[in-house]
Amino acid sequence: MYSLMIHGGAGSLDKLTEAEQRDYHESLNKIITEGDALLKSGRPAFEVVEVCTMMLEDDPLFNAGRGSVLNEDGEIEMDAAIMNGIDLKAGAIAGVRFIRNPIHLARLVLEKTEHVMLIGTGAQKFAKLERVPQEPMDYFLTDKRTKQWEEAREKDVTVLDLDKIDQETLPHEDPKKYGTVGAVALDKDGNLAAATSTGGIVNKHFGRVGDSPIVGAGVYADNNTCACSASGYGEQFIRLSMCKTVSALMEYKGLNGIEAANEAIRELIVKVRGMGGVIVVDKDGNCKCAYSTGGMIRAWAKEGEGVHTELF
Amino acid sequence: MYSLMIHGGAGSLDKLTEAEQRDYHESLNKIITEGDALLKSGRPAFEVVEVCTMMLEDDPLFNAGRGSVLNEDGEIEMDAAIMNGIDLKAGAIAGVRFIRNPIHLARLVLEKTEHVMLIGTGAQKFAKLERVPQEPMDYFLTDKRTKQWEEAREKDVTVLDLDKIDQETLPHEDPKKYGTVGAVALDKDGNLAAATSTGGIVNKHFGRVGDSPIVGAGVYADNNTCACSASGYGEQFIRLSMCKTVSALMEYKGLNGIEAANEAIRELIVKVRGMGGVIVVDKDGNCKCAYSTGGMIRAWAKEGEGVHTELF
Repeated sequence: MYSLMIHGGAGSLDKLTEAEQRDYHESLNKIITEGDALLKSGRPAFEVVEVCTMMLEDDPLFNAGRGSVLNEDGEIEMDAAIMNGIDLKAGAIAGVRFIRNPIHLARLVLEKTEHVMLIGTGAQKFAKLERVPQEPMDYFLTDKRTKQWEEAREKDVTVLDLDKIDQETLPHEDPKKYGTVGAVALDKDGNLAAATSTGGIVNKHFGRVGDSPIVGAGVYADNNTCACSASGYGEQFIRLSMCKTVSALMEYKGLNGIEAANEAIRELIVKVRGMGGVIVVDKDGNCKCAYSTGGMIRAWAKEGEGVHTELF
Repeated sequence: MYSLMIHGGAGSLDKLTEAEQRDYHESLNKIITEGDALLKSGRPAFEVVEVCTMMLEDDPLFNAGRGSVLNEDGEIEMDAAIMNGIDLKAGAIAGVRFIRNPIHLARLVLEKTEHVMLIGTGAQKFAKLERVPQEPMDYFLTDKRTKQWEEAREKDVTVLDLDKIDQETLPHEDPKKYGTVGAVALDKDGNLAAATSTGGIVNKHFGRVGDSPIVGAGVYADNNTCACSASGYGEQFIRLSMCKTVSALMEYKGLNGIEAANEAIRELIVKVRGMGGVIVVDKDGNCKCAYSTGGMIRAWAKEGEGVHTELF
């Protein structure tokens, strides 16, 4: 038995045209099919979540790797994290630039250092030493993201004026603001793994780090419970330790992955009025996507049950 | 009713001379007495944990603020996080330099931005805008830390050679390697708060971030459960989401803060062979320090019960 689930972000999604929806279905279908084949052939969950996340990073449709959004300086800073349910080993990087596949760099942090998380120029130095593929700015930049950034800059001219920032009036409803990608898998050996990668939020400033590279918040995997990847308004997910919450609900309250995902989203809404969602594969192979937004871009596959893509 | 607990790091502590032990007791006593007086006068837990942590940062005895250890470049990079149990709001900064009180900067992230976590040069830019007190390198540097760093450099010449890093042979037993400070409190209004601050590990490289600034790992506070601050070999605490684990054990398994702290340390040992400890104040005012190391430098105060300091 094996199970796989991937996501391309949560949001209202109500502004997506039919053509855009088709694009998402098509891309998700290609990636989930590839992941399904790998799991079927007996590849480990840890490898498959990395491969799927790299494919999501490579597709400019998603806000991660190529297609990442621009920060206030018109630059791209990416975050990613990966976790292995076998031994709870994790690797994470935050605030890196020019790295073709941030999730691969996160994997190298896990495998080649004694650390879990590397940030900024230090992470960049590590990437150079490890000779991971880097790309020029042109590679990451899409017309859509440049336009999005210009709009955000125009609407949001006060974003640098700290006194005027109001946490309650943030545009929580804009799905473009919290695009993230991720993958969770259970392989034939019963091992779980999770991966999450993001380009962050449009026009972000001050080296802001969201939940994606935070183990426990944007990603978690434990063979005793589940693998979980989140997408949403990152700050709320950090405050709840969202993915660890799903795991803890299984471990300490005896819920299965489906119940735990639903309960964690309920907590997200009640405790921090949070917007976003999670994908979960539990140790028994249950696949579940739960969200407080209008939709979540996702796909899943279970042994013998084919592949599925869904947006709402 | 109110309760307060502070810590100055976990470790084997067996190399501490009697004079050093006296120094710790004296410093802890001064700080816990100050915090006790503030809580007695009705000040909020969130304010008291900040004040106590700032006092710990100001004392060169502890590895946070003044007295922080040096990274591989002979520089000081500090991390801190604070969390308010009332609304789960949190602020964190990682990889900052020259900031007199990192915990105060973390508080400003919580209060003045819509973000939870700022890192590196971005966090530095924010500190400048907020005009937080900065100090020259001389202020932070102590003879002890410089000597420590020189020793680490000498012993550990291969630290830059990634191929030779072996996760299993790390010097887990060296308390100097994971000094951290923190405070947790329950105030008379029944509100909980937690704070954690650190100068990191000696000779760390590549912009490594430990558990201290990671909400869920090094710090957590929720009025429904407890306030928790951790100190230890940070990577293991991240992999377990240590402080969130304590909170989840109370929330989902019905344990009190004392039982939850013990159980979380048991998990730390069993699941990730982790070294370190936590201090916990729960919603009922229970104070508990639990650790897998030889000792943990801590002090506590409960209304009407005076103040106490302890190392082993």
